[in-house]
Amino acid sequence: MTEDSLVAALREICEARASDASPGPRKIVLGIGDDAAAWQPSRSQLCVITTDALVDDVHFHTAAMDARDIGHRAMAANLSDIAAMGARPVLATIALGVTPETSEAWLRACYTAMAALAHAHGARIVGGDITASPVVSLAITVVGEVSRTRLKTRAGGRPGDVLAVTGPLGASRAGLELLRRGAAVPETDPEHALANDERRAAELAFARPTPRMREGRFLAASSYVHAMMDSSDGLSTDVARLARASACGATLDDVPIHLAAFAVAEAVGHDPARYALDGGEDFELIVAVAPRAFAHLSRKFSLAFGVPLLAIGRLDSEPGMRIASEGGERELTAAGFDHLSPRAKC
Amino acid sequence: MTEDSLVAALREICEARASDASPGPRKIVLGIGDDAAAWQPSRSQLCVITTDALVDDVHFHTAAMDARDIGHRAMAANLSDIAAMGARPVLATIALGVTPETSEAWLRACYTAMAALAHAHGARIVGGDITASPVVSLAITVVGEVSRTRLKTRAGGRPGDVLAVTGPLGASRAGLELLRRGAAVPETDPEHALANDERRAAELAFARPTPRMREGRFLAASSYVHAMMDSSDGLSTDVARLARASACGATLDDVPIHLAAFAVAEAVGHDPARYALDGGEDFELIVAVAPRAFAHLSRKFSLAFGVPLLAIGRLDSEPGMRIASEGGERELTAAGFDHLSPRAKC
Repeated sequence: MTEDSLVAALREICEARASDASPGPRKIVLGIGDDAAAWQPSRSQLCVITTDALVDDVHFHTAAMDARDIGHRAMAANLSDIAAMGARPVLATIALGVTPETSEAWLRACYTAMAALAHAHGARIVGGDITASPVVSLAITVVGEVSRTRLKTRAGGRPGDVLAVTGPLGASRAGLELLRRGAAVPETDPEHALANDERRAAELAFARPTPRMREGRFLAASSYVHAMMDSSDGLSTDVARLARASACGATLDDVPIHLAAFAVAEAVGHDPARYALDGGEDFELIVAVAPRAFAHLSRKFSLAFGVPLLAIGRLDSEPGMRIASEGGERELTAAGFDHLSPRAKC
Repeated sequence: MTEDSLVAALREICEARASDASPGPRKIVLGIGDDAAAWQPSRSQLCVITTDALVDDVHFHTAAMDARDIGHRAMAANLSDIAAMGARPVLATIALGVTPETSEAWLRACYTAMAALAHAHGARIVGGDITASPVVSLAITVVGEVSRTRLKTRAGGRPGDVLAVTGPLGASRAGLELLRRGAAVPETDPEHALANDERRAAELAFARPTPRMREGRFLAASSYVHAMMDSSDGLSTDVARLARASACGATLDDVPIHLAAFAVAEAVGHDPARYALDGGEDFELIVAVAPRAFAHLSRKFSLAFGVPLLAIGRLDSEPGMRIASEGGERELTAAGFDHLSPRAKC
C-alpha cells in the first residue's frame, strides 16, 4: 500500500458517497487529490470552521473499538461544533496518522463511516493528509455555512437566561464505562442488573453519537437564543465556559440524567449525576434562552423534534458555577474532560 | 497548565499578530475560543482548503529542532499548498497533540512562529484543538481564496507543455542531512569542505522554507500556466503526480540543483542530483506552461521576482517519467517522500 494507491482508494469511498444531490456536494469545485480542495461559498453567508483532534487511547481505542465507530465519533464531534454555531456543514478534511499496524481494511471502514455521517448531513470529505505516526490519530476539520444573523456563539448569554439542553446527559460516559469493563459489567448485583436495552443505549451513545444538526439550526433561527455551544467536554466544564464567555455565572438546578447513564452507573456503583455533569461527549446542545421566550421555544422544539428542550438552570450575574441541592446551593467544580490533564488519558 | 489557560495564552499570541490591517484578519468575524471560528468569504471568489499533518520524528524532530522552526515549517508546508492553487491564504486552524513533556514555552514558541508566518501572508490562526498525545503532532488546515478563472490544479497540463520550477531544488534535503549529522559534517575532506554560507543556506532551507505565495498568484494569473503544484514530496514524485493528473507523461532534461545541495551532498559523498530529485520539502512551485508562452512568461517572472523561472523538461503523451542523460533517456523512478513507506520514518 503506497500513499498514492491509498489516497485513490479513500477518494473512491468519499466520492461514491457524494453522488447524491444534497446541497453540500454541489458546491464542491475540486475534491480529493490536488494540493487543496476548492468550493464555492454561498453568497451572503458566513463560513464557519472547526478542528478536532482525536488520538488513540486518549479519545478512542483501536484495540477495543470498531473502526467504523471511531470514524463516526470523530466526525460527529466535529459536526456537533458546526451545529453549535447554528450552521450547516459543507465539507470536511481529514488528517490521519497511521501506524505500520494500521490495515487498509481499517482505514476503509473508518473512512466509510466518516463519509457516511458527513454525507447524511449534506457535507463531503474533500481532502486531507495521511502520514506515518507512532499512534493512530485523526484530526478532522469541518467547514459550514450560516447567515450572519443566525450565527450563535458562547458569548451572548445574559443574567437570567434559562440554560437548557437538547437531551439528557451521561449516556456516552456510561458507554465508555461498559467498554472499559468489557463483559465484566455486573450481573453481580441483581438489584441493579443491567437490562439489555439500557446496555445497548449506552453503547450506542458512546459509539454512534448523533450530532444535533437540525436542532442547532432550529435554535439558531430564534433571536431569543442568546448563546449556544455543544456539550463535548462535560456539562460542568462546558456550562462554565459558556457562562464565562457571556461574562456571567451559572446555577444548575435540574441536570437531566439519561436513563442508560442511571442504569450503568448504578450497576457499577458510580454516581449517575457525575456521569451527566462530567462525562462529556454527549454532543447535546446547550443554550441560553431569554426567560420570557423559553416556554414558547420549548413547545415549538417539542413539536419539531418530539422531545422537550430541557431546562437545567439559569445564567446569573454572580461569577462561578453553583448547583442547587436540598440544603440550598453549593459550588460546582468543573470536572469535565480537560485534554491536557492526566485524566485525559483514559 | 490547564487546557483553558493554555488556549488563552495561545489566543493572545495569535490575536496580537492580527492587529495589523492586512486583508485576512479583517474578514474574520469570530476567532479562537468558540466551538468554531467564522469568517466572511469574498464574493465571487472560490475558497480553497488544505490540511497537512506533521508528526515528531517523521516530519520534524523536537529533540534536534527549535520549536520556532517546527512551527514555521509546518505553516510553510500548508501555505505552499495554497500558493500552488494560485490562492491567497485567509485563515488557519491548528490541531496540536502534546505530550506530558511538552512545555508551555515550547508551545508558545511554536505558535509564535506559525502566527508570524501566517500573518506575514495576510492570514490569521482562528482556532484549533489541543490534545494529550503520546507524540507531538501538528495538523494545520489553511483556507484561502482565489477567483474561479485563476484556480490552478494539477490536471490541466498538456503534452508539449514546458515543465518549470520557481527555484533550484535539494537544499532542504541538504539541511536535513546536516541536522542528522549534527556537528559531524566533514572538515574531513578538504577538497569538499563546506563553506559557512553553504551550510547556513542548507540549514535555513530546511528550517525556514519560504512558501512561494506571490509567485503562485503571479503564475495563476496567466492562462498559459495549465497546471501547478508545489514540490513537497520530491520532484520525481511530484512531477509524476502532475503528469498523471494531466493524463501525460514527463521527460526531465535539466534539474536545477541548489548550490547548497551541491555543497552538502559532495561533502558527505552523496549524489546532489538525488537531493534535487527526491529530497522534497523545497516548496518551490512546479508549473506546466504552454510552450509558445514560456519565454515571455519566464521573462516577466524574472522581472517580478529577480530570479528566473527554470525550465526542467516537458510533458509528453507517453505515460511514465523519463530523464534525459548523456546516452539518451532513461526511466525515472519516483523516489520522493511517500508518507507510508518505511523511508518516511527518518
